[in-house]
This record gives sequence, C-alpha cells and structure tokens, in this order.
Amino acid sequence: VPGLSGKIIGRLVRYRRSLHAFPSAGRTHIYSHEIAETLVIADSQVRRDLRTLGTRGTPSRGYEILGLLRDLDRILKPAAAHAVAVVGAGRLGRALMATLHSSPTDMRISCAFDVNPVKCDRIHAGIKCHRVEALEQVVAQERITIAILCVPAAAAQGVAERLVRAGVRGILDFSSAPLSLPKTIALDEIDINIKLAKLAYLSLHPPEDRRNGRRA
Amino acid sequence: VPGLSGKIIGRLVRYRRSLHAFPSAGRTHIYSHEIAETLVIADSQVRRDLRTLGTRGTPSRGYEILGLLRDLDRILKPAAAHAVAVVGAGRLGRALMATLHSSPTDMRISCAFDVNPVKCDRIHAGIKCHRVEALEQVVAQERITIAILCVPAAAAQGVAERLVRAGVRGILDFSSAPLSLPKTIALDEIDINIKLAKLAYLSLHPPEDRRNGRRA
Repeated sequence: VPGLSGKIIGRLVRYRRSLHAFPSAGRTHIYSHEIAETLVIADSQVRRDLRTLGTRGTPSRGYEILGLLRDLDRILKPAAAHAVAVVGAGRLGRALMATLHSSPTDMRISCAFDVNPVKCDRIHAGIKCHRVEALEQVVAQERITIAILCVPAAAAQGVAERLVRAGVRGILDFSSAPLSLPKTIALDEIDINIKLAKLAYLSLHPPEDRRNGRRA
Repeated sequence: VPGLSGKIIGRLVRYRRSLHAFPSAGRTHIYSHEIAETLVIADSQVRRDLRTLGTRGTPSRGYEILGLLRDLDRILKPAAAHAVAVVGAGRLGRALMATLHSSPTDMRISCAFDVNPVKCDRIHAGIKCHRVEALEQVVAQERITIAILCVPAAAAQGVAERLVRAGVRGILDFSSAPLSLPKTIALDEIDINIKLAKLAYLSLHPPEDRRNGRRA
C-alpha cells in the first residue's frame, strides 16, 4: 500500500502494539472502540484508518484480530528488512542504542559508528561500534538503509552526505543541524530544545481547538 | 502573541538560532533569503512567519537583526520562566539531562526524579535527582511547569497525573504510553520506534509531493 502518510503509519504501529497487548482470552474479534480507548484516540479515526488498509469489520463482531494483524504486518513488516545504524556513539547515541536494543521493534539495529577510536571496535549495549572511516564499507556490507544521526551539529551535513552516498535511504537526525539532502531521502528530526520551546509556548497559550477537545 | 501553532514556534526557535550564529561582521541587517538558506527552508516561509510576528523588513536592506531578535525573544523568552524536570533517570533520562545541560537553551533544567533510591539524592550531569516520593513537594517548591517523562510505559499514566496535579502544564513523553490528560495540558511525545517505522515506510514509498520538491 503506497501513498500513506507518516501520520497514519504512526497510528498503524500503535494499532499493532495494542493488538499484541490485548488480553485476547479466547476472543477472536476486537471492536474499533476498544482499540481507540486503549490508545486514547477517536473511534472514528481507527475505523477510517482500517478502511484505508482494506480491513473490514462488522458492527456486531468488530474486526478479526488475526486478519487485522496480517494486514498491519503487510504494511509494517518490510521495516524488518531495514538495517539501522547509530552514527555518533556519544551519551545520547549510546542511550538510544540501549533503548532500541531492549525494545520490541521490527528494525534490526545493525551497528554504530564513532570518530573516537576509544569507543570503536567494541560492543555497546550489544551493538558493535565501528570507526567512522569504515562507514561506506560497513553500510554496504550490512545493507544499512536507515541511520540515526547523533553527531555534533557541525559534523551532521558531511556525515549525512556520506551515508546517502553509501546507500542510506532514511535519516533520523538528532543533531539539530538543518540538513540539505536529495528529496528522495526520508528525513525526520528530533530536536528536544524545539520540542520544549513548543511545550512552553503551548502550555501558556492553549490553542482553541485543543480547549474544545482536540489535541494540537 | 497567542494563537501561534507548534510548527511556527519551532521555526522561530530556528530563526533565532540562525541569527545568533550569523557572522554579523558589522552588519546590522539580514535578508530573509540568508536565513532561509542557512535553515534549508523556503524564503517565502521566512517572510510569512516574520510578518506574523509583526516584524517589518525592506526589500533593499532586509530585517534589522537586533529588532528581529527582540521580537523573537518577546515570544520565546517566557520559556525561560519554565523550570523543567526529567522524570525517570534511567539511561535515556540521564543522556537527555547531559544533553540539555550542555546545550544552549532558554529552559532551566531544574531537577530529576527516580524510583530507584540508589540514583537519588545525588547529582547527574549537574542536575539533582530526587526520590519520586518527593515529586509533589519539589515540583511546587521549584515551580516546575514542564516535565520530560522517561519512565517505563506501565508507570507513565500514573506519574503524568501526579505531575499535572502538582502543577505541571506541559509534558514531553518518551514512554510510548498513550496518555490521557486534561485537554489544557500541552502534550508531545517522542517515540523512536514509530519515527523509525515511518522512515522505513517513507524511504520505500517517497510521497509524490516530496518527489516534487517538498518535504513530507
């Protein structure tokens, strides 16, 4: 199913999590309002998203759990084919490696890279750290397609370009640097300071539509 | 200036950063296209955002740098009044404390909380860690209004409710748990697994409008 937005993909991951956590106890079906309540979202949103997948439920029985999981896996499982590298094994990079290594995910965290030789050629949180000089070679060998960028802002653009040339198709950027990359590369960023600035502003000025019951 | 969206606040933070980093060298004015190039965004977007602030530039000279900084500060500086707590001093929580402590930000990272007594009553990365039992008392004393939630998913809802009752107005949630909180509370979340799932999908299915030059 091509053409889905990042937002719907995010919700599909949550639907799958909630199904895995659902105490089935012999039940074969689940209602959209049960999924919605667990995830604190609107019932109508769940039904709309599942209709987009082509999954059909009935008002009397709801959705068949196994069929729904199969439909979700069809879209989300190719993620398992992606190998992920963490670039920059500083404090944040190592914390992410540990978090991802211990959390259930479809992604294979393949390895890490760092400029500091002291951190390299050893294992952090079960993940091998290579010298950044070997980036091109290791990315190709391990078929890495997704990178988590935890390098200092000044190094980010250069490292990102090397990753893309080596075959990476998606980058999650923690560096706070504005990256300029080919439009075909999927790029997302996490900037904690910006997140906090937004929260600070929005906590002082709650938007009208949130007051009326919708999240911003 | 009330009524601004989270998106524009994010860009205003970036504009201010780019002004601080701009090699002024005796210059008093800056053009919107100079800001836009540094941040890899559209010139027209910069001009539209600055018009929203009420900041005026001229085609011949651009924007006066000091005046622009003053207008940005007027909106973003109240953030300095916010004290931030990190709740959950595990690996990720401690990495965030270290990152935030060393990065330039308007926010004051006030303290941390943890359930594990071994981690408490000591300093991590320059930040005091309290026992979670003292949460209500410390949040009130230190006038903490923003919390970064790094607790396990199973504990998140309970801790979030305690924070809100104690006076917190905004929560940045790293727990992956769906939180149900009053609508007036500003809530944002960072779920790395969901970010990676989106990148995996979008790197295989680049959206049409990104192919045509726009970011998703």
